[in-house]
Amino acid sequence: MLDYASLAALAAVVREGSFDRAARALSVTPSAISQRIRLLEERVGGALVVRGQPCLATEMGRRLCQHVDRVRLLEQELHEALPSLAPEGGVRVALPIAVNADSLATWFAPALAAFATEAPVLMEVAVDDQEHTSEWLRSGKVLAAVTASARPAFGCNSRPLGAMRYLAAASPDFMKRHFGDGVGAGSLARAPSLVFNSKDELQARWAHRLCHRHVELPRHILPSPQAFVTATVAGMGWGLHPQALIAAHLENGSLIELVPDTPLDVPLHWQYGRSASSLIDGLTRQILAAAHSALMQS
Amino acid sequence: MLDYASLAALAAVVREGSFDRAARALSVTPSAISQRIRLLEERVGGALVVRGQPCLATEMGRRLCQHVDRVRLLEQELHEALPSLAPEGGVRVALPIAVNADSLATWFAPALAAFATEAPVLMEVAVDDQEHTSEWLRSGKVLAAVTASARPAFGCNSRPLGAMRYLAAASPDFMKRHFGDGVGAGSLARAPSLVFNSKDELQARWAHRLCHRHVELPRHILPSPQAFVTATVAGMGWGLHPQALIAAHLENGSLIELVPDTPLDVPLHWQYGRSASSLIDGLTRQILAAAHSALMQS
Repeated sequence: MLDYASLAALAAVVREGSFDRAARALSVTPSAISQRIRLLEERVGGALVVRGQPCLATEMGRRLCQHVDRVRLLEQELHEALPSLAPEGGVRVALPIAVNADSLATWFAPALAAFATEAPVLMEVAVDDQEHTSEWLRSGKVLAAVTASARPAFGCNSRPLGAMRYLAAASPDFMKRHFGDGVGAGSLARAPSLVFNSKDELQARWAHRLCHRHVELPRHILPSPQAFVTATVAGMGWGLHPQALIAAHLENGSLIELVPDTPLDVPLHWQYGRSASSLIDGLTRQILAAAHSALMQS
Repeated sequence: MLDYASLAALAAVVREGSFDRAARALSVTPSAISQRIRLLEERVGGALVVRGQPCLATEMGRRLCQHVDRVRLLEQELHEALPSLAPEGGVRVALPIAVNADSLATWFAPALAAFATEAPVLMEVAVDDQEHTSEWLRSGKVLAAVTASARPAFGCNSRPLGAMRYLAAASPDFMKRHFGDGVGAGSLARAPSLVFNSKDELQARWAHRLCHRHVELPRHILPSPQAFVTATVAGMGWGLHPQALIAAHLENGSLIELVPDTPLDVPLHWQYGRSASSLIDGLTRQILAAAHSALMQS
């Protein structure tokens, strides 16, 4: 079998970002860490870690870390069946997942917390656009993800979650200044929009559907769901917001829809490794239940 | 002088992430874009763009994009003095800045919106840890940043903003389960903490100050200020929160301080390029005013 002391050293270096911190986390000396990683690299025949600030895994290193994560999940199940095997103090395993920012800011966090409060895990949540979280799964960086893609990644199951409903909204003052003559290709090409990051295509999709052609939108980039709402209320731009995040603002009139009854629904899916453990099954149950009450079900 | 049509093509490819989208943004054909970039690469004698999904700038490409940003800012000032020079419809310049997530989620967004609503700019906000935003400045990826570092980056001015006050807090139920026998090195080594990302050292610093030694904290990674609060209230872990974000929760008892009167103050600074334009000066005025009323002044 593989040398798991060396693999644990590798995983610690990648997680902690430095040899010193990895040594502290494993209660060994930094030279023990670097010796173990050197041995592993000799065996594999290539570099596993790019030494730097922080230390990063190479492609091969990442594959090995992913293997360590999976073995740990299996060990965790074993500990539940044979508690005497479990280490003193009950070590928690890391469970890496990826989720889109708007889900994390709304329905996902309570479900995640409910699961993590009871399960012997440490969640490692990565945030990316719903169009890109499936790449995290494919590359093996995470074991489960909320994604826009229904097609299961290799070795994964895919379950529909329902759709996140987005509304195009702006402040009343912004509407008066930029859309006084109506919302169309002309005014959209001049009024500043807000996008979450350069991958965010929601505003462009909404405008395309409205105008039946591509409109080049001027855009501010603002990667924070909270700041996104604050900045829209303050009149910095228009943007697509999860309905749940702006319901109160629409109610009290601090935001209004650009064009009434033009929601954009983004179907989301939960994908998770098929070979994964009963821990993933428990998380899946929480996620599905929360999604079914928070998202639009068709 | 340099060929600015080619430089604009390069900046568009890097901003949009693909040759097709850059072509659309500049209303030219994709082959015109790739020809301009090839010419530029021949002149520079090296690659400027790594072709991929998305296309990324090389080190040299990034330096050129930074130059384009600065020239555009100078042009913008010229347009204010000589409006006839300004293009039809008043093209807005992009102003890239970096800010820490907690500032963006609290005091920063309203100030930014107030500035952007009036100024002819499109803000491009990048989010990183306050210990790392100064690297964005140094590498020239942004023209201004909120940072923990007081020492000006090369070519920058640095102004103190005051300190962001953090409080270590958890839910009453979590306190009972994990800190029933008090908060110390032993209980902190077992109770799950929340960290924003793997660079987030606030929890470790707070624990070190309390226990007078390093404590290895088990940690969930949760990169969203909103989810961070939600998950803490739901009992997933303890963590350091900006006082402003949890004041209501402390008031109504859904969160309590781990140890009363142990705030952690993180001094923040505003750094901005010295050669930059009057636009940056306007932003600086807004940022300083907002910080002086929202942050702890010593």
